[in-house]
Amino acid sequence: MSQSSFGKKFVVTTWGESHGKAIGAVLDGCPAGLSLCEEDIQVFLDRRKPGQSRYTTARKEGDLVEILSGVFEGKTTGTPISLLIRNTDQRSRDYGNIAYSYRPGHADFTFDQKYGFRDYRGGGRSSGRETAGRVAAGAIAIKLLNELGITFTTYAKSIGPVEIQTFSEEEIRNNSLCMPDAAAAEKASAYLEKCLENQDSAGGVIECRIKNVPAGLGDTVFDKLDATLAHAIMSIGAVKAVEIGDGIQVSQLTGSQDNDGFTQENGIISKTSNHAGGIMGGMSDGSDIILRAHIKPTPSISQPQATVTSAGEKLDLEIKGRHDPVIVPRAVVVVEAMAALTITDALFANMSARMDRIHEFYHR
Amino acid sequence: MSQSSFGKKFVVTTWGESHGKAIGAVLDGCPAGLSLCEEDIQVFLDRRKPGQSRYTTARKEGDLVEILSGVFEGKTTGTPISLLIRNTDQRSRDYGNIAYSYRPGHADFTFDQKYGFRDYRGGGRSSGRETAGRVAAGAIAIKLLNELGITFTTYAKSIGPVEIQTFSEEEIRNNSLCMPDAAAAEKASAYLEKCLENQDSAGGVIECRIKNVPAGLGDTVFDKLDATLAHAIMSIGAVKAVEIGDGIQVSQLTGSQDNDGFTQENGIISKTSNHAGGIMGGMSDGSDIILRAHIKPTPSISQPQATVTSAGEKLDLEIKGRHDPVIVPRAVVVVEAMAALTITDALFANMSARMDRIHEFYHR
Amino acid sequence: MSQSSFGKKFVVTTWGESHGKAIGAVLDGCPAGLSLCEEDIQVFLDRRKPGQSRYTTARKEGDLVEILSGVFEGKTTGTPISLLIRNTDQRSRDYGNIAYSYRPGHADFTFDQKYGFRDYRGGGRSSGRETAGRVAAGAIAIKLLNELGITFTTYAKSIGPVEIQTFSEEEIRNNSLCMPDAAAAEKASAYLEKCLENQDSAGGVIECRIKNVPAGLGDTVFDKLDATLAHAIMSIGAVKAVEIGDGIQVSQLTGSQDNDGFTQENGIISKTSNHAGGIMGGMSDGSDIILRAHIKPTPSISQPQATVTSAGEKLDLEIKGRHDPVIVPRAVVVVEAMAALTITDALFANMSARMDRIHEFYHR
Amino acid sequence: MSQSSFGKKFVVTTWGESHGKAIGAVLDGCPAGLSLCEEDIQVFLDRRKPGQSRYTTARKEGDLVEILSGVFEGKTTGTPISLLIRNTDQRSRDYGNIAYSYRPGHADFTFDQKYGFRDYRGGGRSSGRETAGRVAAGAIAIKLLNELGITFTTYAKSIGPVEIQTFSEEEIRNNSLCMPDAAAAEKASAYLEKCLENQDSAGGVIECRIKNVPAGLGDTVFDKLDATLAHAIMSIGAVKAVEIGDGIQVSQLTGSQDNDGFTQENGIISKTSNHAGGIMGGMSDGSDIILRAHIKPTPSISQPQATVTSAGEKLDLEIKGRHDPVIVPRAVVVVEAMAALTITDALFANMSARMDRIHEFYHR
Repeated sequence: MSQSSFGKKFVVTTWGESHGKAIGAVLDGCPAGLSLCEEDIQVFLDRRKPGQSRYTTARKEGDLVEILSGVFEGKTTGTPISLLIRNTDQRSRDYGNIAYSYRPGHADFTFDQKYGFRDYRGGGRSSGRETAGRVAAGAIAIKLLNELGITFTTYAKSIGPVEIQTFSEEEIRNNSLCMPDAAAAEKASAYLEKCLENQDSAGGVIECRIKNVPAGLGDTVFDKLDATLAHAIMSIGAVKAVEIGDGIQVSQLTGSQDNDGFTQENGIISKTSNHAGGIMGGMSDGSDIILRAHIKPTPSISQPQATVTSAGEKLDLEIKGRHDPVIVPRAVVVVEAMAALTITDALFANMSARMDRIHEFYHR
Repeated sequence: MSQSSFGKKFVVTTWGESHGKAIGAVLDGCPAGLSLCEEDIQVFLDRRKPGQSRYTTARKEGDLVEILSGVFEGKTTGTPISLLIRNTDQRSRDYGNIAYSYRPGHADFTFDQKYGFRDYRGGGRSSGRETAGRVAAGAIAIKLLNELGITFTTYAKSIGPVEIQTFSEEEIRNNSLCMPDAAAAEKASAYLEKCLENQDSAGGVIECRIKNVPAGLGDTVFDKLDATLAHAIMSIGAVKAVEIGDGIQVSQLTGSQDNDGFTQENGIISKTSNHAGGIMGGMSDGSDIILRAHIKPTPSISQPQATVTSAGEKLDLEIKGRHDPVIVPRAVVVVEAMAALTITDALFANMSARMDRIHEFYHR
Repeated sequence: MSQSSFGKKFVVTTWGESHGKAIGAVLDGCPAGLSLCEEDIQVFLDRRKPGQSRYTTARKEGDLVEILSGVFEGKTTGTPISLLIRNTDQRSRDYGNIAYSYRPGHADFTFDQKYGFRDYRGGGRSSGRETAGRVAAGAIAIKLLNELGITFTTYAKSIGPVEIQTFSEEEIRNNSLCMPDAAAAEKASAYLEKCLENQDSAGGVIECRIKNVPAGLGDTVFDKLDATLAHAIMSIGAVKAVEIGDGIQVSQLTGSQDNDGFTQENGIISKTSNHAGGIMGGMSDGSDIILRAHIKPTPSISQPQATVTSAGEKLDLEIKGRHDPVIVPRAVVVVEAMAALTITDALFANMSARMDRIHEFYHR
Repeated sequence: MSQSSFGKKFVVTTWGESHGKAIGAVLDGCPAGLSLCEEDIQVFLDRRKPGQSRYTTARKEGDLVEILSGVFEGKTTGTPISLLIRNTDQRSRDYGNIAYSYRPGHADFTFDQKYGFRDYRGGGRSSGRETAGRVAAGAIAIKLLNELGITFTTYAKSIGPVEIQTFSEEEIRNNSLCMPDAAAAEKASAYLEKCLENQDSAGGVIECRIKNVPAGLGDTVFDKLDATLAHAIMSIGAVKAVEIGDGIQVSQLTGSQDNDGFTQENGIISKTSNHAGGIMGGMSDGSDIILRAHIKPTPSISQPQATVTSAGEKLDLEIKGRHDPVIVPRAVVVVEAMAALTITDALFANMSARMDRIHEFYHR
């Protein structure tokens, strides 16, 4: 397994650069018999697509997905699903300074340090555009999980200093900022206007809640479900912190405040609170899984920034062009996709955990 | 690769239960020619060892490590290093209620859900005792990295509500709480006394700074260095949040505040600030790597807690016995070990990134 | 890592069905800075291409490869290389009996057993067509290895009962059977004519010799170089046996006959014979690596064969259409590709084997 | 995953050198609830143990296995099973020439080339002794598979030029050569006597037959069941060729001879022959799986052999001490163990292949 693959049983591999011919993903390990068509995936790509509000880049990408393999007569066949998205808007242009400068907050310097040179067009492989492949594969994971009753609610919990105060699930798709609180969305819009005026950008927090995950998924040691989720979420470019459940608050709580008790009703054992965010000892506990990703402000800002070229020449770099003043709304579906890929992998890994169920499985 | 292994090129596998015969680790992928003896490892185990202060469990484990393979005449041979730690203090006793009850905040319920039953003695595999194997293997990683000039500073940044105000590297080992601020350590001790009086427990924050990591380690997509670090750190039992660099603060910063500029002096390009915590676009940038782990309060508290047995019977559980009111001081070395294992893996993975260096390597 | 990926550091993932829209491969882990263009790959695909002699299928596939990512200004960038080959000859036709019958010697029955149904068009994923993706990725491996001085000679050693008696490297590309002995090629042609007359098919043996592999590649235990080569070669559809060096003959030799002695000249230590086929104790020994793949006769024959449908109905199946009476000549380049992918992976894995070389690498 | 681990879901890691303190294995991924005690494993180790006939080394190792983790109250718990075998017979002695000479047919030279130096005592990590760890883990796989009805029959098919003519399953354990034909065993004994007289050694062929493997295990592309079996078997030190089913014979058969037809009786579809050796298109077909390993003659022979020291000095090396004139009988159980580990891994991997069965599994 290598850098561009994620998962052990349900494995996504993405490929492609921002301004290359195309980007895509190969999903291997998808079981046979899942109904799947391109529209199932397109709706998720549309949630990530640029150009949906004035706070997201004006770049016009159709982002139309094509399924090249792994589906026959409307059903997955168990073989790798190859997903292709052509880059339709690769305007040939002069990258000028950017080609050889190290943009602050970007991977330009580190990519050069690792590989010796880079495809400087639009960030190349380090572009957020790579996440379209993740979303396409994640859409399949979500469809599969939905069939098993597992559902996702993902939204912007805050943008810059503006945090949600109320929660309405329908509202999430009503505003272009994916906030479940219309009033907060309005305030956040005003904040983003100010950022634009200042040639500056904003960050935010994305929260994801996953319902109906069966208890017992994940592992006891290195592949704890929270650990693989943290890996998945932190692998999204702009994420700088990941929390599970009460997250950063736990360090100031006492054990009696933080512990979730258990109760039983009608033979069903469940927790009486959910500080743990649905994961205990690395395994799902049947409560909602709750995680948060802290997203840094978009690094591409148009005000001049002091930096150097790859040759070491100092300059004040002004980044022109189309850039989101905040990526949080577009990253919401990326967080959801990564969480879904992780949960699906854990779901499959779990199937051989018990000898009694292996007996049942092979002696149907 | 499975649940009890971590790493791709430098792979640690841990095994063992809290009250079994022994625990241990196998480290595979360690290069030949590293000087290594048991004492090199023992000093790290001693940092994790219980019984060092009144705030850590009184259990007396020698935690003496034995190297069973992979070392010949004082040097590693390139073959797997098997590390064994006998459990010397496995008092046979009556587990009473605990054997069949679901302790709040523990993995008892989820382990049962996954596997159908469990080794109830002291948490079995889900015990913090498993981390001794990680520390033993991590000690080897740290020795290897130290040889290359890479060093670690890890400490308790806060315990409960008490945060450090000053920073003295020497102070870290002077107080039993591993805090780099003597005054804060004193306040934290007072706080822990109160927790003990209340039959309660505390959490805290651990910070790790890694110096001299060469730029370019890590990958651009799923195996970003921050993503694998997040995986590593979140896989430590009580961790509920992981931050890199400015971490949770970035969501409220603007791009112009958060971006790290570049400068050049004497031909060396470096950053002018380090909001990113030493990782840009998933790859190390030559600055110090900075990460924080948020640790929940010890779940084992002696005040009665409402829970159920595995049969669904409700009870008020009182957990007797030896339990740390805070695990933060002992977890400091575990965080350091996991970070070191991750960095070493990235270091080795990086060696085949460039064709020119492959030429050099094979045409020495 | 999953079923459609091969390698640990240099990882190829193939996708695509025989009669789907396209087939392809993603190669991840290719170092930055290798010169690469589509023509470099096309020459290898042309060696595999159908329609080159009357003994290979008349199907007309351009098999034109398109590089979609990972190459910038003529050089690899270190990011995944996505390779696309459109299926241009997917004649819509009536598969009749074949759609629901189990063709003897094919994967129809086992695929159904595993997945519950299958893409029956031309074998779907189990078609030999999948190997085009392997050849495309293998072409890159071969180019990379060639740069380091490592070269491959691969040929048909026998076809049916006709074995080569002489060896001429140039002759391999002179005859359409890829035999290094023109007279044997002629006899083999006559044998294949007879097979065609009998509505029957033939197998054969492919031999691959790899020169200039540095000593010390491979591992001592499970990932012995011969073990990973055996995995690679046996994963080619029609292969039923793999030999290294003296192979099956060793069971009848004595130790004094089979052991390769060592000698030294001008300070260079080398073996005095090569029964081992260039691999000792799982690691390359500096001699030529020699391996052989035993290929079964093409299962698709036009004479009627007794079989059943998926519903269990018995029938005499006649397989119409375009089928090679022997696949050996086309499989030659597939064997070479798989060997090259394996050697490259071992080459990269080897770079972190010694502490002294890690020092050199990071202290350039 | 690294060199000393095998498997993806059911992962064995071995460690230890021939003359170190101990050798062992860690088995991760074993499901919870399998009855297991040390005696279950010991019976397999006893089959591999030296000193059972005059044709196997006189070294006296108790080879007593100790289970250190993963078993509680007689059942596996789902956590890693750590298996320890102390090396009781590590006579301190003068290795003289051997320490610095390259023994023909051994890994001495290649190990030095890879790692720069080696543990020269008894072959170190490259010793056949490493396989005791494989057998210990394989014993658990076999117990697990036996519970599901899958059984193994493994035996020496030939020793040197002496091949079995008849087959009696009971006879396999009656003679010390593990041959299912008493007369052949007698002839083989005579042949080995002659080898001993000549200070020489012999090879042989081991055959393994696996019954009741459910159809559909394995994969269609790189992880074909025959490919992973070839990997597993070729990773045993002395194996130079691996065959599946008709193996090397297929190259001379025609399609009509080699193809296995299908028939149906009482609704059960099965093959009418088994040239394929139970694997079609990389997946098990419900017939017996048949594989053969070709074992080279023991490289350690007492007649003088021309070789060099690591410093390049030429010498005639005489290898003294305890060495099997043939390792085939002891390797029989190693082949069985490796086959069992491979089948178990495939069995678990297969569980998520179909959406309908995932539904069943999670909606029990």
